[in-house]
Amino acid sequence: MTLRMYDLAGADPARRFSPYCWRVKLALAAKGLPVVTIPWRFTERAAIAAHGAEKVPVLLDGDRVVTESLAIAEYLEATYPDRPSLFGGPGGLALARFVNAWADAVVNAGLVKLVVADIVQVLHADDTAYFRQSREARFGMPLEAVQADRDRQVESFRRDLHPLRMMLRGQDFLGGAAPSQADAIVFGGFQWARCVSPFRLLAGDDPVEAWRQRMLDAHGGLARQAPGFD
Amino acid sequence: MTLRMYDLAGADPARRFSPYCWRVKLALAAKGLPVVTIPWRFTERAAIAAHGAEKVPVLLDGDRVVTESLAIAEYLEATYPDRPSLFGGPGGLALARFVNAWADAVVNAGLVKLVVADIVQVLHADDTAYFRQSREARFGMPLEAVQADRDRQVESFRRDLHPLRMMLRGQDFLGGAAPSQADAIVFGGFQWARCVSPFRLLAGDDPVEAWRQRMLDAHGGLARQAPGFD
Repeated sequence: MTLRMYDLAGADPARRFSPYCWRVKLALAAKGLPVVTIPWRFTERAAIAAHGAEKVPVLLDGDRVVTESLAIAEYLEATYPDRPSLFGGPGGLALARFVNAWADAVVNAGLVKLVVADIVQVLHADDTAYFRQSREARFGMPLEAVQADRDRQVESFRRDLHPLRMMLRGQDFLGGAAPSQADAIVFGGFQWARCVSPFRLLAGDDPVEAWRQRMLDAHGGLARQAPGFD
Repeated sequence: MTLRMYDLAGADPARRFSPYCWRVKLALAAKGLPVVTIPWRFTERAAIAAHGAEKVPVLLDGDRVVTESLAIAEYLEATYPDRPSLFGGPGGLALARFVNAWADAVVNAGLVKLVVADIVQVLHADDTAYFRQSREARFGMPLEAVQADRDRQVESFRRDLHPLRMMLRGQDFLGGAAPSQADAIVFGGFQWARCVSPFRLLAGDDPVEAWRQRMLDAHGGLARQAPGFD
């Protein structure tokens, strides 16, 4: 039974930029599970509402519908236990929930302020009004104003990555010697930015940049091959 | 063979306030390993230099000397594998290194600015000059000035704990349903503050405070019984 998933797409249906969908695509790749992705746009609510969902990613595994990226990874770990582990045991799964919260609160919340107006440029015309209105309501200002000072704001974003940088002194991945789902969780945000914006998030000599390059190469270069900015 | 460890102490030899020593004491408790702690002061360099160490914690296990709190926890996990696991598998160990970096860079680095002048009040007279000089050099100002604005600074400390707070919506501990070494790593900082200062770090209705209370109760109330401030 082929797995299928709804995957956020831009005007170019090959541009798949959701950080949460990337977490799932990397989980599926780590498990060695093929997936047919279905390009989906913000305004195509009916398509996923038919499966009881309001947001992507939505994974369809036969009759099962699974939503929310971490819940999907946990589902895959439980359902396909003979495939390579995503978490490396119960302790790794429990701490992946902390990493997920850190990635959402620090990495993704920091990132979006640096690239949010660039996202509009890659959206399909049907999505731009929805995206601009909902995000401008959230930030309380035009999207161009949110990222206007990004050359300075990126410095505090880089500082907030310091725990990851410290950890990388001792090991190549959050998973240790090889990437785990925790790496996919954090990397999803960087891949989101890469898909939508040419803005340079990391200094070239930052150990976090070296880790990001390793993640671009993981699983046969899955993330590097995706349409985006180098 | 009884385990022994050098454990930072104040003027009251029963006041043991090092966050890194607490990480180890909680690891030993989780493993069910008795330990004889040796009170140690900052200026007693010769005592640990005899074991090749410059800082506490220093664990002595027969002829073995192990330093650095995370390395000690990893040593205990490897040496006493039949005891309860500290990490819950290889994934949990790898991610504990990230939690360790986050706890050092965000929790402990934030905490120290709120209580550092209070530490002086609990030190033995032999240690106060060393402590004040070394820390004032680090902060570039008198210790009283570092914490002068703490009623306001504590707000940003609380905000920085948000990833932990988010995670606690879904589980009671970093370890999941029960504490793991990752909990001990983060809690060590809060126990440090509790041992040296009456300053209130967390709001009473903060889920992080509820977690801190659970950690004070863990291992038969080991941390709660230690001399400190309620």
